[in-house]
Amino acid sequence: MTNKYVYDFKEGSKEMKELLGGKGANLAEMSNEGFPVPPGFTITTEACIRFFNEGEILWDDLKKEIQFQLENLEKTIGKSFSDKSNPLLVSVRSGSVFSMPGMMDTILNLGLNDVSVEGLAKSTGNERFAYDSYRRFIQMFSDVAMEIPKVRFDHLLEKLKEEREVELDNELSAEDLKELVKQYKRVYLEEIGKEFPQEPINQLELSVIAVFKSWRNPRAVIYRKLHNISENLGTAVNIQSMVYGNMGETSGTGVAFTRNPANGENALYGEYLMNAQGEDVVAGIRTPEPISHLRDIMPDLYDEFVGYCDKLEHHYKDMQDIEFTIENGKLYVLQTRNGKRTIEAAITVATDLIEEGLITKEEAINRVDPYQLDQILHPTFDEEKLAEAHCIATGLGASPGAASGRAYFDADDVVIAKQNGEKCILVRGETSPEDIEGMVSAEGILTSRGGMTSHAAVVARGMGKCCVAGCSEAKINEEEKVMRAGGIVIKEGDYISLDGNTGKVYLGEIAKVQPTLSGNFGKFMEYVDSVRTMGVRANADTPKDAKQGLTFGAEGIGLCRTEHMFFGEERISFVRRMIMANTLEERKAALDKLLPVQRQDFYELYKAMGDRPVTVRLLDPPLHEFIPTREKDIKELAESMNISFQNLKDRIAELQETNPMLGHRGCRLAVTYPEIYRMQARAIIEAAIDIKEEGYEAILPEIMIPLVSHEKEYKYVKAEVLEEIEDVFKERNNKVNYLIGTMLEVPRAAITADKIAEEAEFFSFGTNDLTQMGFGFSRDDAGTFLSDYEEKGIFESSPFEKIDRDGIGELMKIAIKLGKEANPDIKLGICGEHGGEPSSVEFCHMLGLDYVSCSPFRIPIAKLAAAQAAINHK
Amino acid sequence: MTNKYVYDFKEGSKEMKELLGGKGANLAEMSNEGFPVPPGFTITTEACIRFFNEGEILWDDLKKEIQFQLENLEKTIGKSFSDKSNPLLVSVRSGSVFSMPGMMDTILNLGLNDVSVEGLAKSTGNERFAYDSYRRFIQMFSDVAMEIPKVRFDHLLEKLKEEREVELDNELSAEDLKELVKQYKRVYLEEIGKEFPQEPINQLELSVIAVFKSWRNPRAVIYRKLHNISENLGTAVNIQSMVYGNMGETSGTGVAFTRNPANGENALYGEYLMNAQGEDVVAGIRTPEPISHLRDIMPDLYDEFVGYCDKLEHHYKDMQDIEFTIENGKLYVLQTRNGKRTIEAAITVATDLIEEGLITKEEAINRVDPYQLDQILHPTFDEEKLAEAHCIATGLGASPGAASGRAYFDADDVVIAKQNGEKCILVRGETSPEDIEGMVSAEGILTSRGGMTSHAAVVARGMGKCCVAGCSEAKINEEEKVMRAGGIVIKEGDYISLDGNTGKVYLGEIAKVQPTLSGNFGKFMEYVDSVRTMGVRANADTPKDAKQGLTFGAEGIGLCRTEHMFFGEERISFVRRMIMANTLEERKAALDKLLPVQRQDFYELYKAMGDRPVTVRLLDPPLHEFIPTREKDIKELAESMNISFQNLKDRIAELQETNPMLGHRGCRLAVTYPEIYRMQARAIIEAAIDIKEEGYEAILPEIMIPLVSHEKEYKYVKAEVLEEIEDVFKERNNKVNYLIGTMLEVPRAAITADKIAEEAEFFSFGTNDLTQMGFGFSRDDAGTFLSDYEEKGIFESSPFEKIDRDGIGELMKIAIKLGKEANPDIKLGICGEHGGEPSSVEFCHMLGLDYVSCSPFRIPIAKLAAAQAAINHK
Repeated sequence: MTNKYVYDFKEGSKEMKELLGGKGANLAEMSNEGFPVPPGFTITTEACIRFFNEGEILWDDLKKEIQFQLENLEKTIGKSFSDKSNPLLVSVRSGSVFSMPGMMDTILNLGLNDVSVEGLAKSTGNERFAYDSYRRFIQMFSDVAMEIPKVRFDHLLEKLKEEREVELDNELSAEDLKELVKQYKRVYLEEIGKEFPQEPINQLELSVIAVFKSWRNPRAVIYRKLHNISENLGTAVNIQSMVYGNMGETSGTGVAFTRNPANGENALYGEYLMNAQGEDVVAGIRTPEPISHLRDIMPDLYDEFVGYCDKLEHHYKDMQDIEFTIENGKLYVLQTRNGKRTIEAAITVATDLIEEGLITKEEAINRVDPYQLDQILHPTFDEEKLAEAHCIATGLGASPGAASGRAYFDADDVVIAKQNGEKCILVRGETSPEDIEGMVSAEGILTSRGGMTSHAAVVARGMGKCCVAGCSEAKINEEEKVMRAGGIVIKEGDYISLDGNTGKVYLGEIAKVQPTLSGNFGKFMEYVDSVRTMGVRANADTPKDAKQGLTFGAEGIGLCRTEHMFFGEERISFVRRMIMANTLEERKAALDKLLPVQRQDFYELYKAMGDRPVTVRLLDPPLHEFIPTREKDIKELAESMNISFQNLKDRIAELQETNPMLGHRGCRLAVTYPEIYRMQARAIIEAAIDIKEEGYEAILPEIMIPLVSHEKEYKYVKAEVLEEIEDVFKERNNKVNYLIGTMLEVPRAAITADKIAEEAEFFSFGTNDLTQMGFGFSRDDAGTFLSDYEEKGIFESSPFEKIDRDGIGELMKIAIKLGKEANPDIKLGICGEHGGEPSSVEFCHMLGLDYVSCSPFRIPIAKLAAAQAAINHK
Repeated sequence: MTNKYVYDFKEGSKEMKELLGGKGANLAEMSNEGFPVPPGFTITTEACIRFFNEGEILWDDLKKEIQFQLENLEKTIGKSFSDKSNPLLVSVRSGSVFSMPGMMDTILNLGLNDVSVEGLAKSTGNERFAYDSYRRFIQMFSDVAMEIPKVRFDHLLEKLKEEREVELDNELSAEDLKELVKQYKRVYLEEIGKEFPQEPINQLELSVIAVFKSWRNPRAVIYRKLHNISENLGTAVNIQSMVYGNMGETSGTGVAFTRNPANGENALYGEYLMNAQGEDVVAGIRTPEPISHLRDIMPDLYDEFVGYCDKLEHHYKDMQDIEFTIENGKLYVLQTRNGKRTIEAAITVATDLIEEGLITKEEAINRVDPYQLDQILHPTFDEEKLAEAHCIATGLGASPGAASGRAYFDADDVVIAKQNGEKCILVRGETSPEDIEGMVSAEGILTSRGGMTSHAAVVARGMGKCCVAGCSEAKINEEEKVMRAGGIVIKEGDYISLDGNTGKVYLGEIAKVQPTLSGNFGKFMEYVDSVRTMGVRANADTPKDAKQGLTFGAEGIGLCRTEHMFFGEERISFVRRMIMANTLEERKAALDKLLPVQRQDFYELYKAMGDRPVTVRLLDPPLHEFIPTREKDIKELAESMNISFQNLKDRIAELQETNPMLGHRGCRLAVTYPEIYRMQARAIIEAAIDIKEEGYEAILPEIMIPLVSHEKEYKYVKAEVLEEIEDVFKERNNKVNYLIGTMLEVPRAAITADKIAEEAEFFSFGTNDLTQMGFGFSRDDAGTFLSDYEEKGIFESSPFEKIDRDGIGELMKIAIKLGKEANPDIKLGICGEHGGEPSSVEFCHMLGLDYVSCSPFRIPIAKLAAAQAAINHK
């Protein structure tokens, strides 16, 4: 600790973040780099800590330091507090090292009092503005610094507007506002027992105290507790002189981007208004001018500004979004930040900056946000049309994209409507595997229940199809084929639109724009591939998925869910007979019918993928997922199986489970019915031999056994599979190479991975289930309470979206350590939903996985995230 | 390896188990200790391994060794193979170090051929017996050693009986059997292509080869693979001379216990038959004599036998169960083993043996099987009546005891019937919390669904009430109030009986016997308590449970499930209003009604427990468990809440979850509704202050937060609880000490236990949930497939019964290690179902837990298991 507690912006630098807070350090940096930042100073975080040690008072030496800096500021800027013609006014802002909730809001126009308000009126030539600023300052100061309920002031304002019979604040006259200032000061007197402080130094000291105290605001304390942030960091206080763009015709204000934020073009882009404040631009009463016009009216200033833009872009090595104000012909840069941009612009700017030699390939790759990359791969609504659209409900943006179509409440109806040339949205309480064909036929899917990893969400993402899930605001009645949302009734056939990014549901049809994969996209992905070290595979269940994956650059299939092959008119009936079989013979008979179909599936998949690896997961879901739930379908099945409806219904009831997620599924099915996996293993190997005999010598299927919890269960199931494979080899008098391994998705398996690895050639982490079981959160049900966790700051994001590194990630670490000890050559991948989520992909890289596998549509995202991870974790 | 492959029994000892197998080593031990064991020899396990290395043949040196031992045996016993008057016959048995499935069955009477069968007829004076033995030997040898299908012989036997028009085997004459021998030999010739071997040495060599080969029987190989038993252990072969108790009036056979196996009295107890074989005793045609009569007819031999009994008891230091045969006045001890006994006898024998100075206190404690101890704590059916009872179905023995009563299919009906003085059995598909009152009123509970840890099972065990669960053989129709089982229809009001130990369901009422806790029980438990180091607490939700726990020696309450306090006529309606509240105010109003009731509960619980610790778990189950499911009850609730039936029904539907076990429950409820835990914390602390003010200064409630998965959620909930407690302290102007900690039952919590332990004063392992989530097994659903796991030898027992040490136990170890690193003083306990299961209690001791907590009725079991663990893991 030093004895210096107050720093002029010129005395600091960006390295002094701990002492000056994030905001203070940045203001200091800009000031020192020669940018015309309105001058000011920062009271340090150490002062905040000492403030509490002193018993929550400002000690004399500190007051002296502040006084000294204030006087300095008056000199620098040539204005002084309480000046009758052009007074010094300042803003006061808090600023700690980390931003956190509960910290004090900004106070603007500090320094206004009964005298300086006149000065402000004079200097801006706008009395109304001056008194409006004064009454706002009183209210802001009273509320923020003195904790007087805001409602007291609002109440007076409303009353005055009623009396004046006006609707908007800005319809009040200067006289009205003068009256309001009087009333506000009266409120202050009543609440505090003292007159509203006229002395700016008093105003300032009270504000500084309020900022310091806000450090111990309960919300902030809880936030720090939850995020392990020390109580001893403290917050800094930034005091900055105000500048005005509305002081006449040589004043103005504007915003500019150093490049075009829509397409990335390298040209200054922005707008400004003369004799205006920022809020005038927002209010939209006057139309701003394009930035290029500034050159015509103030050529020198324009050149100066362009110079700053260049300098800022070079300083921050990225496209900048700059706010500026001209006060009496003098240019001030109020703020600069890396400019927000579309993903198209981001890619163009990044590739351009490499070519301009401004940044390296690695820096450029780090500049593009993989989360944003999602947008480029799906159509989006036309922004203008969207602005006019009527949003009737909001759910979870479960699978990106934009879709419009007629609402249908039954998957079969969607199939028929689609055949009739209609565009449809499938609307369901939740989807189930028997809705698959309807999902394929629909433009988009809307469900009222289920979360980001519900059936609808997972399947839709796999298909790259737009989906809004868990939209509980929409009351869906499947029986009556009607949906109620936002006071509107949607009947079958009515048009609705879904935004799979925002989760919004709109009334009617909205025009869409197709994103174009520009030449820069390909160039950028080449850079990405050149630094990436981890493999990226696709989750693909069909040859169509596989081809889609290849289009996006998949290096193999990391997860082929064989159960998705079980749907489809001719197959599902055999699957159902297999499930409902009373005897081993009946079951084998049904499996015999499935064998050739399944073999053909694998054959086509291998063919599509060429010599790339294909991981096939043996049957995973509980059998009841294949069984019809609708009376009608049950009747049909009963007839086709030649048993009574009641009999079938009873047996279906027997399959129901209390917690199906923890029930009879995965390899547990094969313990009970080894013949199912045997059929699948036979299909995998027979198809591989067929392919090999056609000359694809490199064929190497990877057989994956799901939901293993215990090495003994794995060994038992593996022995069955191997026996079948040996049988095929003998029958065909030919062999193929293959790998056999397991999903690593049960906590117990992670803890005992060494024992499993002894007989497994690969592990593929199933982080959906690992998260479900590790946390004890049902992904179908957690939506209802995880939102409370996020709202209360307990979780920053759902662990179903980003891998929870401390817990689930730790289980993965344990599994990898144990697995490699027992089998140093074990191949490691991930095929859960996290495999396409950037933060999770980064973590997978850190863990040393060989590959991630994700939906075809997320492959570029995974690749980018993997490349960034390779750069940032050498 | 030595060059010696065959050992006479006299050459071995019990230390040579690896070489001679378990059986061979024991026979050697007995022979060398001077007991009159029929002589014989053992071919070593090393011979078995060499047999495979030699290409599955018996090499010449081995044949010579066998021949040498055979000749030796002929000499010793004074009989010779193929003798025409008194031939040497032997038995052949396999015997490896571990017993395992698939190993070869015994072959008896080897040595019989066309010549020696006559000798046997002569020596036993029973031609029928001789030929029956011969035809049995042919069949056994053909089946076991030569793999000829048994059915071929059975078929001939059946045919002959039909021709003779007899029903039982023993109605066939000697001539018939001679004919059968001829036919059997013909079968052998057909199947093998050679005559049935007449040369005993050939018979023996073929049998030895068969034993060796059985080592590689596929079932045995899979068993060894699953149990990590080396393939290179091999099996030994035991060849022992046969002796006969049916060679005349100086021959006989019998069985004796050295002490009374029913009550433990120290007196020889047993029975015998002269001129008889073991199977005659079993057949029940002749009535055996009590062992004491043997003294009258063969006083010297009786004394000799008593001498052996004493010696055996001293040698094995336990009550022995001895099989003996007298052949022509010579006594042979065929087998001795520690005698099976009732638990009453076990306790009496153990305490007597200490007092007799034969064994130490520690040895005695190890002698009593804690699993068996369960019996003594519950009434059982009268054995004689049970033998006559009609068993109509078998389910899971979910909670021990015996119960008879009238079947009722609705919990409310049980309550009414009980009020009318009836004894009732509650019969349900499965129970739910709204059945609690009916369960309290019933004598026993029968369910057709759910496993050992289903609601019915857990609650019944807690109550010490007999329960048969998951009895799928019984088809229960709750609507029609009827049950179908074993072809019988049970209507409401019909008598049935349940055996909670065996899981059997009987028709009608069966007389019961109350077990008497003898004086020895108390004495024995004192020994147990004197060596035990781990604490034993009770799971108790009510003062009644608490008192029951104290009766059985509970040292505190390890788990008070507050939700069990929420049932009961006047409470449940407030609970339901609390759940169905639309606003925070409504919820708080309902909670305010619950507060005094809950406070009174805790007050009484503390009072019952005196200065012993009481751990209270805050609300855990999902809220929908409190909500009625029956139309009638929903209507009543809607009326009482003054809302529409449909409205209430809709809101109940919203509470339904796909996987409730992984849903909105435990501390997740308190994240959403902190006011619930606040009310409970207030009740706990207010009651504690009340008690303290009455002078119980030591009161120390332990507040337990369930289902924590993340330190942040724990910290959030704890902060809420602490704030409420501070409020109470201020209001009451008094304080009490308390602990606050968490259930450790979520895998993620185990992996991150260090972070949680920073703010937790205790962990209580909830191994039910830890097992569910660690394995991904729903305890409600796993019954259907875990039986397959056990059947196929993948699991030896359900992990819900015995803690899975390798996986779930490893999670516990990790949690303890991390927890102690962060908080060395952390208190550790367990309160899952495993807390009363002996193997799990042992494991808890090994982990260093401070206490286990279990149902009151399991406390003596837990104490005994804890004492044994203290002895065996110093």
